[in-house]
Amino acid sequence: MVRLDSTEPDFSTAFARLLTAKREIAQDVDEAVRAIIAGVVSGGDRALVDYTRRFDRLGPDFSPASLRVSEAEIAAAVAACPAEALDALRLAAERIEAFHRAQVPADHRATDALGVTAGWRWTALESVGLYVPGGTASYPSSVLMNALPARVAGVPRIVMVVPTPDGVLNPLVLAAAHLSGVHEVYRVGGAQAVAALAYGTETIGAVAKVVGPGNAWVAAAKRRVFGQVGIDMIAGPSEVLILADHHANPDWIAADLLAQAEHDVAAQSILITDSAELADAVEAAVERALTTLPRQEIARASWRDYGAIVRVRDFDEAVPLVDRIAPEHLEIETQDAEALSRKIRNAGAIFLGSHTPEAIGDYVGGPNHVLPTARSARFSSGLGVLDFMKRTTILACTPESLRALGPAAITLGRSEGLEGHARSVAIRLNL
Amino acid sequence: MVRLDSTEPDFSTAFARLLTAKREIAQDVDEAVRAIIAGVVSGGDRALVDYTRRFDRLGPDFSPASLRVSEAEIAAAVAACPAEALDALRLAAERIEAFHRAQVPADHRATDALGVTAGWRWTALESVGLYVPGGTASYPSSVLMNALPARVAGVPRIVMVVPTPDGVLNPLVLAAAHLSGVHEVYRVGGAQAVAALAYGTETIGAVAKVVGPGNAWVAAAKRRVFGQVGIDMIAGPSEVLILADHHANPDWIAADLLAQAEHDVAAQSILITDSAELADAVEAAVERALTTLPRQEIARASWRDYGAIVRVRDFDEAVPLVDRIAPEHLEIETQDAEALSRKIRNAGAIFLGSHTPEAIGDYVGGPNHVLPTARSARFSSGLGVLDFMKRTTILACTPESLRALGPAAITLGRSEGLEGHARSVAIRLNL
Repeated sequence: MVRLDSTEPDFSTAFARLLTAKREIAQDVDEAVRAIIAGVVSGGDRALVDYTRRFDRLGPDFSPASLRVSEAEIAAAVAACPAEALDALRLAAERIEAFHRAQVPADHRATDALGVTAGWRWTALESVGLYVPGGTASYPSSVLMNALPARVAGVPRIVMVVPTPDGVLNPLVLAAAHLSGVHEVYRVGGAQAVAALAYGTETIGAVAKVVGPGNAWVAAAKRRVFGQVGIDMIAGPSEVLILADHHANPDWIAADLLAQAEHDVAAQSILITDSAELADAVEAAVERALTTLPRQEIARASWRDYGAIVRVRDFDEAVPLVDRIAPEHLEIETQDAEALSRKIRNAGAIFLGSHTPEAIGDYVGGPNHVLPTARSARFSSGLGVLDFMKRTTILACTPESLRALGPAAITLGRSEGLEGHARSVAIRLNL
Repeated sequence: MVRLDSTEPDFSTAFARLLTAKREIAQDVDEAVRAIIAGVVSGGDRALVDYTRRFDRLGPDFSPASLRVSEAEIAAAVAACPAEALDALRLAAERIEAFHRAQVPADHRATDALGVTAGWRWTALESVGLYVPGGTASYPSSVLMNALPARVAGVPRIVMVVPTPDGVLNPLVLAAAHLSGVHEVYRVGGAQAVAALAYGTETIGAVAKVVGPGNAWVAAAKRRVFGQVGIDMIAGPSEVLILADHHANPDWIAADLLAQAEHDVAAQSILITDSAELADAVEAAVERALTTLPRQEIARASWRDYGAIVRVRDFDEAVPLVDRIAPEHLEIETQDAEALSRKIRNAGAIFLGSHTPEAIGDYVGGPNHVLPTARSARFSSGLGVLDFMKRTTILACTPESLRALGPAAITLGRSEGLEGHARSVAIRLNL
């Protein structure tokens, strides 16, 4: 953990160092991923099953017929889930769906004074593949956050893939798939699953877009299939930035910093405050809270290597620092949180006030928890309904409006050396 | 050119072949591009000037001070443009800006029955870099189509880069930059220009996103800097698909097919019709029109290698074919164009009726001409205002609403093995 102070002479250098700290371990798996994708493209189900047996340690009885998780298996998994967890998932699903319903975009069409009609129409993608990690990173909440916007968009075919290392599958993940209207579930993972979604096999029909988080293999595979299909962002390690003044409760702030840090040793938690007292109190509270945290080894490493407490003169000084960090999650626990939030340009999601811990947003708040990391909130948004729709523009000229606009199009076509463009207009005007 | 007929037994194989024809020449420039980017990152202006001297054949007097195109040079370029072309550009700019103004998204915020406030806020990107190709592919219309949505979005800093091979710069390109509110223009191109935009040099400040078309070097550079900055789609060769019945004028259809074919030998023009007579007439009309077209060599090669005329029994049969092709441009010249258009899911832009040649949309229609190619209209949209904005979600709980939602968040956090998440909620509820 570093302590920075904006009044110190080397502050801008130290802050720049914080900003450029490399938190991702770039595993070089690209060549292996290329081979796996080529294998699935040429070998189909057979190759997919071979890779899955090998990487997920499954026996020789795992066959193409084993790929799909049946309706009966899903029903059995739902029945096996604790009632309390199922109820919590249902509440989360309802709230996430309600929030995203407000994101459905409107079509538009207007006819101007010349008689030209122009506008656009939004349509859902024809199919989507959702990657869900296996093992300990298999989060039912992420199933909801990825599948529900697709359902709200009206995607008629939502396919989920999830690896089952050693045959183990989290029943809550299947319950979340069931609750969020996933149409097909396959027990495959890794680059081979991404390849199957992008190119299709005998059993798994190709989709138009692949979304969802994954390890280095999955990320490399998504980069490679981009173009053949659409992909969502490549997620990096999670991060939180908290703005807090001396009114804030240091134990609450410490809990929020550690909720982020427990994700991953590469996660990052930062506090920016105008209060030296709060800075000291939070530093001490983090140490206390760490001692009883089950994932304290992970959280301690993250806080040690990437944590930061930055003291500023006032919050106006903090605004440009926040915009440079462009945090995935921004908590504002100051007296005037709402007004301060309006000054910020770059953040994935903002949590206002001391009763809005980021973890509420991870599960049941309603907004999506799939958010831009690693400063990409400067140029991108969290996942939403628009990621599962696309816009087709519409243009219609009448003979009269073509007569009005045609000469300018002919002039521009010729000025660009594209006489064929000019002629396609001129021929309709007998020019 | 191939003629296909849906009544023939090998139709589905032949159509699949049409769909998968590789039209892109994959130039392997990736390693050279990697080196150029590394050079600009470490060498800044000095490296940028060196690459530019070499690739654009500029003399030793080209220095960091020469990089920026001055206001006086832009004013002189505007003064040197033919009045007719300037007027046409102005008309185009007005119409494009008006169309895109309707795309500015609304913010949203609502408080639910529990007292949870949730919503989102859209903000413009802080800065954008627009790549404009040099030489013959230097299109002023593309400057308008890329810069105006950024201006409408409210981007406070729009930077344009354009190479000047042998020192030559198209005055209409500078005029288009002036008309569309570009703030800074630099005479650099290629991978070195993309690197400068993404990482910044002493003279060129880094931007948050790089957009605009370019050759294989530019495309490879955009792929490489993605993550450091945002990028728009990687554009492939252009394409048009025309649906027409026997009422259509074969000479007009031929003109539209050739307007597309003249772009590039890798462009693709396809006609789908239910009329054998129209199919024959268009085939003959294309041959006639080719003989007088200035760019007939390019158009002839494109039509020969990638052109197609597909006859179908009726247009209901055409709908799934269109959706599989997912054309960049779709012209519908049938009696019931509007109704037919509603059945199509996948298309970048639709041009309705026989008086709406695609070339009108290239210049003065209003909708954007930067559109998804190579079947990517299955999962993506043309350029628009949303590409220059990003959404920040907002969440605010009251103490009461946190009490209502908290237990479900705690349950889900624990079920995912994230006790720190659960505690950050529980500590606020004294649980």
